[in-house]
Amino acid sequence: MPSEKHKWYLDHTSPGTAHMYGIENYIISFQTGYQQVEIADTEMYGRILFLDGKVQSAQSDEYIYHEALVHPAMLMCPAPQRVLVIGGGEGATLREVLKHPSVEQLIMVDLDREVVVKCRTYLESWHKGSFDHEKVTLHFMDAREYLENERDPFDVIISDVPEPVEEGPALKLFTTQYFALIKSRLSKQGVFSLQAGDTCLPLIDSHSAINNTIKKVMPFVKPYRAFVPSYNTEWGFILAAPYKAELPSEHAFNHLLQERKLVLHYFDGETARAMFSVPKDMRRRLDEETKIIDDDNLMSIY
Amino acid sequence: MPSEKHKWYLDHTSPGTAHMYGIENYIISFQTGYQQVEIADTEMYGRILFLDGKVQSAQSDEYIYHEALVHPAMLMCPAPQRVLVIGGGEGATLREVLKHPSVEQLIMVDLDREVVVKCRTYLESWHKGSFDHEKVTLHFMDAREYLENERDPFDVIISDVPEPVEEGPALKLFTTQYFALIKSRLSKQGVFSLQAGDTCLPLIDSHSAINNTIKKVMPFVKPYRAFVPSYNTEWGFILAAPYKAELPSEHAFNHLLQERKLVLHYFDGETARAMFSVPKDMRRRLDEETKIIDDDNLMSIY
Amino acid sequence: MPSEKHKWYLDHTSPGTAHMYGIENYIISFQTGYQQVEIADTEMYGRILFLDGKVQSAQSDEYIYHEALVHPAMLMCPAPQRVLVIGGGEGATLREVLKHPSVEQLIMVDLDREVVVKCRTYLESWHKGSFDHEKVTLHFMDAREYLENERDPFDVIISDVPEPVEEGPALKLFTTQYFALIKSRLSKQGVFSLQAGDTCLPLIDSHSAINNTIKKVMPFVKPYRAFVPSYNTEWGFILAAPYKAELPSEHAFNHLLQERKLVLHYFDGETARAMFSVPKDMRRRLDEETKIIDDDNLMSIY
Amino acid sequence: MPSEKHKWYLDHTSPGTAHMYGIENYIISFQTGYQQVEIADTEMYGRILFLDGKVQSAQSDEYIYHEALVHPAMLMCPAPQRVLVIGGGEGATLREVLKHPSVEQLIMVDLDREVVVKCRTYLESWHKGSFDHEKVTLHFMDAREYLENERDPFDVIISDVPEPVEEGPALKLFTTQYFALIKSRLSKQGVFSLQAGDTCLPLIDSHSAINNTIKKVMPFVKPYRAFVPSYNTEWGFILAAPYKAELPSEHAFNHLLQERKLVLHYFDGETARAMFSVPKDMRRRLDEETKIIDDDNLMSIY
Repeated sequence: MPSEKHKWYLDHTSPGTAHMYGIENYIISFQTGYQQVEIADTEMYGRILFLDGKVQSAQSDEYIYHEALVHPAMLMCPAPQRVLVIGGGEGATLREVLKHPSVEQLIMVDLDREVVVKCRTYLESWHKGSFDHEKVTLHFMDAREYLENERDPFDVIISDVPEPVEEGPALKLFTTQYFALIKSRLSKQGVFSLQAGDTCLPLIDSHSAINNTIKKVMPFVKPYRAFVPSYNTEWGFILAAPYKAELPSEHAFNHLLQERKLVLHYFDGETARAMFSVPKDMRRRLDEETKIIDDDNLMSIY
Repeated sequence: MPSEKHKWYLDHTSPGTAHMYGIENYIISFQTGYQQVEIADTEMYGRILFLDGKVQSAQSDEYIYHEALVHPAMLMCPAPQRVLVIGGGEGATLREVLKHPSVEQLIMVDLDREVVVKCRTYLESWHKGSFDHEKVTLHFMDAREYLENERDPFDVIISDVPEPVEEGPALKLFTTQYFALIKSRLSKQGVFSLQAGDTCLPLIDSHSAINNTIKKVMPFVKPYRAFVPSYNTEWGFILAAPYKAELPSEHAFNHLLQERKLVLHYFDGETARAMFSVPKDMRRRLDEETKIIDDDNLMSIY
Repeated sequence: MPSEKHKWYLDHTSPGTAHMYGIENYIISFQTGYQQVEIADTEMYGRILFLDGKVQSAQSDEYIYHEALVHPAMLMCPAPQRVLVIGGGEGATLREVLKHPSVEQLIMVDLDREVVVKCRTYLESWHKGSFDHEKVTLHFMDAREYLENERDPFDVIISDVPEPVEEGPALKLFTTQYFALIKSRLSKQGVFSLQAGDTCLPLIDSHSAINNTIKKVMPFVKPYRAFVPSYNTEWGFILAAPYKAELPSEHAFNHLLQERKLVLHYFDGETARAMFSVPKDMRRRLDEETKIIDDDNLMSIY
Repeated sequence: MPSEKHKWYLDHTSPGTAHMYGIENYIISFQTGYQQVEIADTEMYGRILFLDGKVQSAQSDEYIYHEALVHPAMLMCPAPQRVLVIGGGEGATLREVLKHPSVEQLIMVDLDREVVVKCRTYLESWHKGSFDHEKVTLHFMDAREYLENERDPFDVIISDVPEPVEEGPALKLFTTQYFALIKSRLSKQGVFSLQAGDTCLPLIDSHSAINNTIKKVMPFVKPYRAFVPSYNTEWGFILAAPYKAELPSEHAFNHLLQERKLVLHYFDGETARAMFSVPKDMRRRLDEETKIIDDDNLMSIY
């Protein structure tokens, strides 16, 4: 039967659940020193990057993830000039940051050079040449090591690293110690945002613990979510700042977008209202969280 | 290897995508005159009802779907007394309607008696005895036939029927003619809500066409969404009324909940804000829709 | 798409291989004190019994397995009167033994009463009422315990127990000690046969070790295979006797079948020639085997 | 969980059955003018070639298939000099033919140049350089067209083409007309062998019809089978000749192997005995077959 699909990628979210992606074509598949990398084309979502068996981003909807990750933090900070991206190997986080006209220096620190090299070749529609932008500097090293040695403050820091899987490369980038280090490197009006795991209730433990951990370190912490079709779930993010603050209103976000002449596909004031409004059951779950992730008490997901 | 899962249920959302549900135990599986019915227990979501190969509702999160479907319409209508539920075989829609103290008469019209009989037995945590509530009357017949012969108006009509799959039982319950019939049976302050398909962008065609179809018939139409973990997507609903109106504010919803002494798991003012705020890309997609579903121009999903 | 299959049973033969059985209907599924039992109907093979996630036998081709297991041993023994079946919960091994007119006493020892109770109800086409045959006695107990206490010799002993999976009920029914016990309970012309695992070369380790183990205990040992469609492989059996002997020729088997007036679906002289002729690569693999399974050195498969 | 497999290849043998191959790495995947070609590495079977979604041959056990296909015909023919291989894109059929010292001319006719080009690069352990052997000539064209124009007789013709799937390239290479053409091109002592489909009973229709069709054309026809682990089934072959003949005995095959100084992995006299002995149920099924495949009455498998 010629119409049957033969090549399937299975992304297990638990021992008893998985998503099946019918693959048109495998582009590349390799093991770096840190993780398993696979790039493949699907009919439904276009090209997909998988790291360690999990969807990282898909051509058809990576704009949702990357706009949600970048713009709330960038807009909340008045005229951000010096920006740090941690992880973000696809280059799409750079692409979104560079849309903000005030940016002068954009530094990206990623552990895994091989991933970036392949993304540069195979994910052009993600990075759109951002790796070669004159404002951009790349460092291939551990983010904590970089931050310990870099004393100049950043206006915005964006953490775009994979989820903390066992023995994965990002296990120590979700702890109290890490968030305290981030805090110490933010400028006076600095803002921090990060991808923060699945918010689907049966799998929210990681998101919820990350949120609770940041709350121990920073006074302003706002969890939010965006549904990403290729993830089959509402993905979690957190916006944080080392001072008391208020989330910009729907109106304020729209005003800032206009001021900076940003025309986006996903994010605007009404989108912000949807993302930052948390349903009652999830709010309760977040409020009741007691877990704190610590260098001595790490957390990993399935 | 004893920990491997052996029994899997595959819900195909397109020829190239599927969700795998690891099954602990199959409870019952049969073909009625209208559809394939399966009830099974899963580790992740508890008991699940599948109709024609698609998840209908899961024990662990059916409250999200049913609260989202019922309460916006019930709260928008002042003191609803006479309510009609179309479909809703699990009985959970009845359960939510009955929480509103003003309800005097609750009529449910479902095509498939066998589904209701089995749900009564196997889905007790869904209906909580609602089928036997003194205010409830059940009719097993075609909804359009019922409506054509029932001339007394309803304060709220809630359509909780399966998606329009080819040769499925609900194919004609998403057309202009059907919505006009609904309109003609609503009381002066009557409100209509319905489940309206997947809003995941690659699969939004059905939701978008239903929304556009109702807009041809009623002046007040508000599409909204709720993420349901067991569906792996943000599910779509539509709130509509046969007169010009405004959606209650977050504050107004909270006030009404308090007034009616409703304590819910999912729905409240902030949840409403999340549900009724539509991200920019989806708003654009809905605005650009031109398709109208008609008895002579039916639409079916994969 | 109504033609898609939704219910699939996955039988993993290794971490990187599995067979998918599309299920029409699950009949029953339960955990006994010893194993996970599932009975389900498939389009391709009719009803299937699964134990601990592995196909045990299928309605459409169980005759191959059971004829291959039973008749070589029964025919090799002149006029067998007293026969012991170990395991064989479906009752089809009994059914085949009872076809031999000389049988006077047929004892079956199975550990798991619950499996037999359910097979009696749901697998009628397997046992054909054999459990209630006047010559048959059932004992629900450990086979080794039974054999230690039963001193009267048997003309034929047939071992029809599941493969040795970790913590499975048959782990100790493939060891030197067990085979020595069997040997001691065989009559002067007694014959022993057993199901002996998958002979598919990548998975032959278990079959090969069992064969080698019996060779340490008995002088006559003949491994053989039969391809069973629902197993997707050539299944292994071993015929053995506690004395020097020759395998009956094709002609002799046909003569014996005629003498005992047996009309079978699968087994006859030419079938025997196919089963007992071992391809060169498998012969080499069996010859080179050194492993011996011992109570202190158990073997389990994936 | 790092040990989960993510990449699976599903080979559907019917709408309700499939085999899952865990893929380590996809090597290449492309559509030629005739078929979908995929080469991938598996843990269990090494490298595998898939055509149109079906396993063609696997590194770990292609020797079984190719020895079974080639040597019975080559040994039955006294000192074969001029040999034709139809299909056989992997080059392993050439490799086996070339082991026979009498061969002077070996012609291969394959429709799909692209497949051969890729096999030459990626399946070295299959062809072992045979494409470049001085005795070998390659033609990329339709086999029937070739045979119609080539009048010089062949001592052995071996057909190694994919199964007849709908709109597949080999649909017309299993018909009365084709077999009559083959017959007319065989030398006086010429022998013909072909791969002839799955012999697994639920899927034997194709094998059985091919066997019956050749019987209408040639007086000597012997169906045989070899279990190939990566196929999960006993694969069917047919040995035929345009004159009355007897199959060489086990002893004769061993003698011929010795004479030609052939040392093989799979095939020898005892293997031949296993392959050419047909179990009773399959014999009955073949005997009862009435279907004849004809250019006007083609047959295709799932």
